[in-house]
Amino acid sequence: MFTGLSAFPLTPMNERGVDENAFTRLVQQLVAAKVDSIGALGSTGSYAYLSRAERSRVAQLVVEAAEGVPVMVSIGALRTRDVLLLAEDAQAVGVKALLLPPVSYQKLTQDDVFSMYEMVSANVSVPLCVYDNPGTTHFDFTDELHGRIAELPNVRSIKIPGVPDAPHLARERVVRLRKLIPSHVTIGISGDALAAIGMNAGCDAWYSVMGGLFPNIALAITRAALSGDAAEAARLSESLKPLWALFRQFGGSFRVIATAAELLGFTHSPSLPLPLRTIAGEGREQIAAVIQALELS
Amino acid sequence: MFTGLSAFPLTPMNERGVDENAFTRLVQQLVAAKVDSIGALGSTGSYAYLSRAERSRVAQLVVEAAEGVPVMVSIGALRTRDVLLLAEDAQAVGVKALLLPPVSYQKLTQDDVFSMYEMVSANVSVPLCVYDNPGTTHFDFTDELHGRIAELPNVRSIKIPGVPDAPHLARERVVRLRKLIPSHVTIGISGDALAAIGMNAGCDAWYSVMGGLFPNIALAITRAALSGDAAEAARLSESLKPLWALFRQFGGSFRVIATAAELLGFTHSPSLPLPLRTIAGEGREQIAAVIQALELS
Repeated sequence: MFTGLSAFPLTPMNERGVDENAFTRLVQQLVAAKVDSIGALGSTGSYAYLSRAERSRVAQLVVEAAEGVPVMVSIGALRTRDVLLLAEDAQAVGVKALLLPPVSYQKLTQDDVFSMYEMVSANVSVPLCVYDNPGTTHFDFTDELHGRIAELPNVRSIKIPGVPDAPHLARERVVRLRKLIPSHVTIGISGDALAAIGMNAGCDAWYSVMGGLFPNIALAITRAALSGDAAEAARLSESLKPLWALFRQFGGSFRVIATAAELLGFTHSPSLPLPLRTIAGEGREQIAAVIQALELS
Repeated sequence: MFTGLSAFPLTPMNERGVDENAFTRLVQQLVAAKVDSIGALGSTGSYAYLSRAERSRVAQLVVEAAEGVPVMVSIGALRTRDVLLLAEDAQAVGVKALLLPPVSYQKLTQDDVFSMYEMVSANVSVPLCVYDNPGTTHFDFTDELHGRIAELPNVRSIKIPGVPDAPHLARERVVRLRKLIPSHVTIGISGDALAAIGMNAGCDAWYSVMGGLFPNIALAITRAALSGDAAEAARLSESLKPLWALFRQFGGSFRVIATAAELLGFTHSPSLPLPLRTIAGEGREQIAAVIQALELS
């Protein structure tokens, strides 16, 4: 399940709780589009803002709605104690894989993080995906650490935060990491704007934020890249330039995609947990214009 | 209560729970030393790693042990929903002030943070201290935002992360911030190595990590600086250079002070929540040597 398009849906919510109907509709759209896997409760799915009970409930909902499409959920938490409990909860409702970010408040050392993966990987019975995204976890993996973690039992994939945008540098990056990890561990790209470059450079999977709302175009890019048609993948990604520009303008994909989900009627505003908010005013109009111009839906 | 030495004790804990006896001993030492206030469940007190129930229990313990010394606790959480609940809990057990950090996972905007302070300040009945420490919250306040927040009801102090280490630049920094905030709002320095410089530059308080374990020397520095004896404050701080060097070497004060608390017998190892750990091996020996050389206790 760690190849192809892994689509990361939002978890629409407000101060009263999760909008379960909206979440289920988002998942159903991914199933209908035939994504390769679903990455629920990722950063995009606001796992960090939900209680243990809420996370268990959302995991149950996605497994039910996924109709057999393999589901991964994040078990990230500041404390290893809580990670282990979340892993139990997730496995109990039938998820097929666990995404594990080294979430930090006090700065973590490379050894702290290795020990955490060592303990968790020894205590789970489904595969693990390593989550590397300093933008949210504030932890920087060395490649040496990736190599050590990838040797642990149950580790099957690494979600990397991006690649250089020059294709030959992207390839060097992927080759360098690949040399350090066992062949049964895949590499998946995140950072949607870099996905085509990443897959063209040898990444096996795309862990995608935009794919959680716009699975059809994300699947077209994934299929082109992974079937060897690098030019078509690049062309399709290039056609989304106005979307990538919005991601840059608003500090990442998360709020843009959440705003788009509201605009498209999947959910209502507010759909993010305060203090987070979707984009209002002129920015919202820009997003609506890009959705329309690109015929995203 | 937002002037003088506010001492921030550790919350010793392991995977089974909080070491309540060790925590109480730490608080009792602060009371005996006559610190001006106690900042429990700060970053030093590992608030971010504890459940709501654990935080409420620790808040109750510190108020009981404080014997009238005013107590502040952090109500930080990723979600405003949880911040409001934590504020209720803390007020219910009798804390005199609330420390509010803009904790982030997804990056926050200046407006997100203002709205959060606006909502919380309108819903509490004890004073608030604004917590500005990008090293743990990953949020950078602009001075303009500090000015807006300081005008809100109940806001009484700002805990700043440090000042430039050149005295005239430190003074410029404090004067610049002071101009933007009402006179009833104090400025407190954190970053222990910069405390003497900060107070000599006009800060009213020291929100101190080392003061949570070594209150006597921290009080001596505070009394010298706030009584106008800048030279004596600087001299005392200078005498602690080996401690400041350890803080730099180990990425901050937190793990050094936690290791020192173990070495001094206040608690046993492990005393931090995994994946965090105190310092082992050669580093631990270095810390023991510095404690002995400086006669810290």
